[in-house]
Amino acid sequence: MIQDSQQQAYDRAITIFSPDGRLYQVEYAREAVKRGTASVGVRASDGVVLGAYKRVPNELMEAENVEKIFQIDEHIGAASAGHVTDARKLIDILRREAQVNRASYQEPIGTETVVRRLCDEMQKYTQQGGVRPFGVSVIVGGIENGEPRVFETDPSGSFYEWRATAIGENSAEIRENFEANYEEDIPTDEAVALAYEAVEESNDDITPESFEVAVVETDDECFTELSADEVRELVE
Amino acid sequence: MIQDSQQQAYDRAITIFSPDGRLYQVEYAREAVKRGTASVGVRASDGVVLGAYKRVPNELMEAENVEKIFQIDEHIGAASAGHVTDARKLIDILRREAQVNRASYQEPIGTETVVRRLCDEMQKYTQQGGVRPFGVSVIVGGIENGEPRVFETDPSGSFYEWRATAIGENSAEIRENFEANYEEDIPTDEAVALAYEAVEESNDDITPESFEVAVVETDDECFTELSADEVRELVE
Amino acid sequence: MIQDSQQQAYDRAITIFSPDGRLYQVEYAREAVKRGTASVGVRASDGVVLGAYKRVPNELMEAENVEKIFQIDEHIGAASAGHVTDARKLIDILRREAQVNRASYQEPIGTETVVRRLCDEMQKYTQQGGVRPFGVSVIVGGIENGEPRVFETDPSGSFYEWRATAIGENSAEIRENFEANYEEDIPTDEAVALAYEAVEESNDDITPESFEVAVVETDDECFTELSADEVRELVE
Amino acid sequence: MIQDSQQQAYDRAITIFSPDGRLYQVEYAREAVKRGTASVGVRASDGVVLGAYKRVPNELMEAENVEKIFQIDEHIGAASAGHVTDARKLIDILRREAQVNRASYQEPIGTETVVRRLCDEMQKYTQQGGVRPFGVSVIVGGIENGEPRVFETDPSGSFYEWRATAIGENSAEIRENFEANYEEDIPTDEAVALAYEAVEESNDDITPESFEVAVVETDDECFTELSADEVRELVE
Amino acid sequence: MIQDSQQQAYDRAITIFSPDGRLYQVEYAREAVKRGTASVGVRASDGVVLGAYKRVPNELMEAENVEKIFQIDEHIGAASAGHVTDARKLIDILRREAQVNRASYQEPIGTETVVRRLCDEMQKYTQQGGVRPFGVSVIVGGIENGEPRVFETDPSGSFYEWRATAIGENSAEIRENFEANYEEDIPTDEAVALAYEAVEESNDDITPESFEVAVVETDDECFTELSADEVRELVE
Amino acid sequence: MIQDSQQQAYDRAITIFSPDGRLYQVEYAREAVKRGTASVGVRASDGVVLGAYKRVPNELMEAENVEKIFQIDEHIGAASAGHVTDARKLIDILRREAQVNRASYQEPIGTETVVRRLCDEMQKYTQQGGVRPFGVSVIVGGIENGEPRVFETDPSGSFYEWRATAIGENSAEIRENFEANYEEDIPTDEAVALAYEAVEESNDDITPESFEVAVVETDDECFTELSADEVRELVE
Amino acid sequence: MIQDSQQQAYDRAITIFSPDGRLYQVEYAREAVKRGTASVGVRASDGVVLGAYKRVPNELMEAENVEKIFQIDEHIGAASAGHVTDARKLIDILRREAQVNRASYQEPIGTETVVRRLCDEMQKYTQQGGVRPFGVSVIVGGIENGEPRVFETDPSGSFYEWRATAIGENSAEIRENFEANYEEDIPTDEAVALAYEAVEESNDDITPESFEVAVVETDDECFTELSADEVRELVE
Repeated sequence: MIQDSQQQAYDRAITIFSPDGRLYQVEYAREAVKRGTASVGVRASDGVVLGAYKRVPNELMEAENVEKIFQIDEHIGAASAGHVTDARKLIDILRREAQVNRASYQEPIGTETVVRRLCDEMQKYTQQGGVRPFGVSVIVGGIENGEPRVFETDPSGSFYEWRATAIGENSAEIRENFEANYEEDIPTDEAVALAYEAVEESNDDITPESFEVAVVETDDECFTELSADEVRELVE
Repeated sequence: MIQDSQQQAYDRAITIFSPDGRLYQVEYAREAVKRGTASVGVRASDGVVLGAYKRVPNELMEAENVEKIFQIDEHIGAASAGHVTDARKLIDILRREAQVNRASYQEPIGTETVVRRLCDEMQKYTQQGGVRPFGVSVIVGGIENGEPRVFETDPSGSFYEWRATAIGENSAEIRENFEANYEEDIPTDEAVALAYEAVEESNDDITPESFEVAVVETDDECFTELSADEVRELVE
Repeated sequence: MIQDSQQQAYDRAITIFSPDGRLYQVEYAREAVKRGTASVGVRASDGVVLGAYKRVPNELMEAENVEKIFQIDEHIGAASAGHVTDARKLIDILRREAQVNRASYQEPIGTETVVRRLCDEMQKYTQQGGVRPFGVSVIVGGIENGEPRVFETDPSGSFYEWRATAIGENSAEIRENFEANYEEDIPTDEAVALAYEAVEESNDDITPESFEVAVVETDDECFTELSADEVRELVE
Repeated sequence: MIQDSQQQAYDRAITIFSPDGRLYQVEYAREAVKRGTASVGVRASDGVVLGAYKRVPNELMEAENVEKIFQIDEHIGAASAGHVTDARKLIDILRREAQVNRASYQEPIGTETVVRRLCDEMQKYTQQGGVRPFGVSVIVGGIENGEPRVFETDPSGSFYEWRATAIGENSAEIRENFEANYEEDIPTDEAVALAYEAVEESNDDITPESFEVAVVETDDECFTELSADEVRELVE
Repeated sequence: MIQDSQQQAYDRAITIFSPDGRLYQVEYAREAVKRGTASVGVRASDGVVLGAYKRVPNELMEAENVEKIFQIDEHIGAASAGHVTDARKLIDILRREAQVNRASYQEPIGTETVVRRLCDEMQKYTQQGGVRPFGVSVIVGGIENGEPRVFETDPSGSFYEWRATAIGENSAEIRENFEANYEEDIPTDEAVALAYEAVEESNDDITPESFEVAVVETDDECFTELSADEVRELVE
Repeated sequence: MIQDSQQQAYDRAITIFSPDGRLYQVEYAREAVKRGTASVGVRASDGVVLGAYKRVPNELMEAENVEKIFQIDEHIGAASAGHVTDARKLIDILRREAQVNRASYQEPIGTETVVRRLCDEMQKYTQQGGVRPFGVSVIVGGIENGEPRVFETDPSGSFYEWRATAIGENSAEIRENFEANYEEDIPTDEAVALAYEAVEESNDDITPESFEVAVVETDDECFTELSADEVRELVE
Repeated sequence: MIQDSQQQAYDRAITIFSPDGRLYQVEYAREAVKRGTASVGVRASDGVVLGAYKRVPNELMEAENVEKIFQIDEHIGAASAGHVTDARKLIDILRREAQVNRASYQEPIGTETVVRRLCDEMQKYTQQGGVRPFGVSVIVGGIENGEPRVFETDPSGSFYEWRATAIGENSAEIRENFEANYEEDIPTDEAVALAYEAVEESNDDITPESFEVAVVETDDECFTELSADEVRELVE
């Protein structure tokens, strides 16, 4: 990354604008996201698919405990890329929010409500001094009013709704793959394969064991993590 | 942007004046606004029109969820340009303010009251240390005492009332177009077309799908978002 | 503005003295005042006159809502030059102070009391770290014990009583005009014309529409804003 | 003022010592005092005299409202030089202190007690970060146990008792004049003339109108401001 | 360690990202861990083994009191590398957490729950200003639902589950040794020897006296520290 | 004072150590003490003597009010050198402490207890950010259990008990004089002369009027300030 | 001490790591300890011995009040090297802790418990901003369960148990002497002589008067300071 001395003047303090109106700390947090392995989200016709590529550097490490996919509520999950400790802090807030919603209103929290709450929290860390932005992006997927929905958030606290998206390493290439191959009426099963293949294209060493998958289907609205065997069956 | 070393000395701390009495951080926040796609507001004879151009970078993204137009109360809306996360934080404050007003006084909040509250909040972030100014401008449009009113605010917390105005990318060109074509007795329907054409002149790739429109008319005082089809019908 | 490197060393932190005992941030805030269009105050034999020149950069802007003249209480008004958002924050404090005075003592607040309260607030922002001085000067005019009084305040929190004064752009020239033409026994009507002409001399493009005028007369002690027509009649 | 680069290293932060044990910010605040017009205090045989030279830069300004002499309690007054807004903040504290003393002990506050309270307040602003010292010196004069007393304070929070002293512009020359001409048994009337003449020697343009005088005599212990005519009579 | 001037710009403040998205302070804290002598954790078929190499620089020092292995609850232990004072602060928090769990739920705390609590605490010190990250890594080993589990945490607040892992000096070499020699069905007794030999390979001066060992077996779920004699017997 | 650039790096922040383990701000505060005129304390066989040289720069100044000697309780006094405003702040704390002790325990406070309380307060200002050390040294002298005691404190919060000591300007020379001339069985009267002569040797312009003396004798344990005449009688 | 410019970059802020994982401020605090005169602790067969060399720079100073050895509870003492004011602050905390322990549990506090509490306090000052580490090391010696124990702590908050140790000036040489001459079964009386001789070897000017000694024996568990005569008898 090339940078000149003028840029340096504006990127050290967290909460100030550069002369051209940019917030460098937020942009650098996005770089932290790009350093993490990829995660993807796909909206299928009958559910949502969340996938996360987990690079396991050592055979003695237990891959199952590398956390990149999180359950937020029965019907909502999330996949992160970037600093996993930052992700955990955010997910804890969302889980409490979901519980409070069930206790207060006797109904499940909306997927978009979860996303907005997540982004409010992230925005706070971009406008105050003495803290840094969160170094993580999160894909939130869930069923809302019977419809599957997939959102992507980033360190600035922005969010967008997607049919299929990717965050982290090689996310641009993965999204291009989705643009070429995604179809609106894709069923959940095929969406798992689509997700796997899109990540595989730019990460040769992916295996079903290193690709964590969770699905929430519209019929049971129930967050379900697939086993490595189930993933293997779907992607081969 | 060319700048000399003297300017650099005064633009790093948030709340200090330069020798010529300028607040550089506020001016840089205005640059952040200019980096956002344009939004417009037009006061018609029988209502107000808010329009926002939304550039959708990827066909898999759901444009509807790119937020630039917000409902504040039944009879008041807003269109933003710049950091949308900053805008959301401000809009949340205004919505609560409107609810409190209804609860306390059993009447809808005034449009100008909303604008003043918005600017008080923005001003705070220009005079204290440890925070940055909001990186967003907001056009507020509503019906007050049966009359349509349109206001523009900026990161310094200033506001002005306009007959037709624009914020964000190419806002100067769009305003020139309004100066040439705006007429005092323009009805709401034609104001939508005027707004679309003014933005279109400096953004060739605009389409009815990428131009979000909301209208508040004087007869029902009811914030209404138009569908892409309704927009298309009005602008062709 | 020419400055040497030694001055730079003392003007970046808000609350420190330079070796020659100056507070540069306060002086730079005065520069911010000079960047604003002029406001004037004239003590007439039978009332006070407040005037403010409002440059309207665009014909689609509603000039009435450009705020430079404020009512503080029934019998007291103010005219500002500089950052209008800073002025609004101060005026809000003064209005509350005036209401509290009526509630507590069943009598109108004194004009000088208002001025002292205003200056206490401004001084605070020149002695603490983490804030900047207010970037605005305010002329306060009112009737106290049946007598018209006009005060000028500045960002340091200083105040002076005047017979006729000006703040903002070209204020030195306007004051010279007052020195040449002001007479002690001038009635309110003529004082409006005097004010207009003094500002006009250094701002060719002034018109009765762009010169906001408010008057408080001794007989009714009632803050009254003149219409553009009323102004035109008095100045021609 | 000549200074070398080593001094610069120690005068920017408020509360730190230089290698030779000096507090530069306090010394610079003393420079701010020297920039203000002179004030004097004289202990006469039958009372105290406070005098303040007020330079009125413009004939339209009302000199009476340029505050340099303050009443603290019935029997105690003060004269300031330097930042008048800083002086006002301190005087407000002393007035409250005097009222509290009367309410708590049913007796007037002692002059030295007032001075100590004043200096405690000033010292605080020399030892904490985030604030600047007060940019003002204050002469306090009053009757205590039937005896006239005159004290001088400075921005460090030091105080000294004097028979005749001066602060502000040309204070050294004025004090020399006192040393040559002051006599222990001078009555109050002659002390006013002594004060006027001492200031006049280094400020040619002084007039009885621009020299504010207050007197507290031992017989009635009552703070009294003299009119310009009364001053003229005594000094001619 | 080679570094260029650009890196220096981003590693002095605690909570900011470098342009490539790294948190240098966290990386330097990892260097502090590497400066500490090695600790290891091994998951055996019937328990967990924690080992810590303690270099005793002086024969008059009592090695027993060099703390690197800690009991957290009856069934959970920890081994640290890096700043032992930082480790103690964290362990105190975990012990209280374990006690609270027993008091609240009448059951032992889960090993993974302990690890998550530990990492939450560590993450806090990477996102706030005014503090530094913890300069320590901790291996946590315990029995959960009858199964042995071993986790490694680091200053960023990340954690991973391992079959056999090492932290501190030469940890990479020790892990390579584990990769070559670890077998899934290794009993606790042999795991002690495995751990000793792995550390010994890169630290010639290790002796049974300088290698502290604690074991938690699945049959009694009881944290037990081995004596130097017991260690000697197992490793020879 | 010569200093190199390396030293400069460590003396600007209050609470940090230099590489060789020094606290420069504390050392500079000691320089502030050396800039003040000397004070001395002598333990006589039948009491303690406190002396302070007061340079009166102007004959119109009332020397009596230059405070360098303070009564803390009936039986304890203090003499300061350095910033007198800092001394006053500390003495106020000690006086309250002494009163509280009498109220709580119905007995006079111990001299050493006063000294420890004084040093605790001074230490606080050497370990926290945002404040500077006290720029003053204080000699405390009193009668404890019938015995005279004299302590010296310094800006670091250290204290030492002395038979005869000096602080401020020329303190090293004065102490040498004490070493040559002090005798254990010196009575209070002669100790006053000893103190005067020791200070006189390095300050030619000292007179009995400018040397303030207070004595606490063992027989009445009563702090007594001597008049200039009493001092003159003892020193001639 | 030689240092390069890279080191300078990391040693000015208190709580940050250098690229190689060091905390420079803690290391500099250790330098402050080395600047203090030596203290030693020896575990004898029947008690503990604490010794402190006190350099008395002036014969008029009372050496007894130079504090380096402190009683913490009846059965526990401490010897410090470095900033004595910092030591006093820590000792005060430990004394209160010991009293609270007796009041809460009706039993004397453990020596190791005291040491842990001491180190927790010291660690706090190494991880937070706005404070500096304690510039002192403390040897704690006491009887616990009938056994003598000696611990050494340092500014990082680390502690080690020793048979014989030294802190402060020449501590390395003194420890080498202990390594050569210490024997496990040394009785308390001989341990005093051992301590004295070890310090004497690197400090020629030591005398029994300048070597403060305290002993806690196992039979009475009672902290006892030896007189200079008692010390002389033991060391000759």
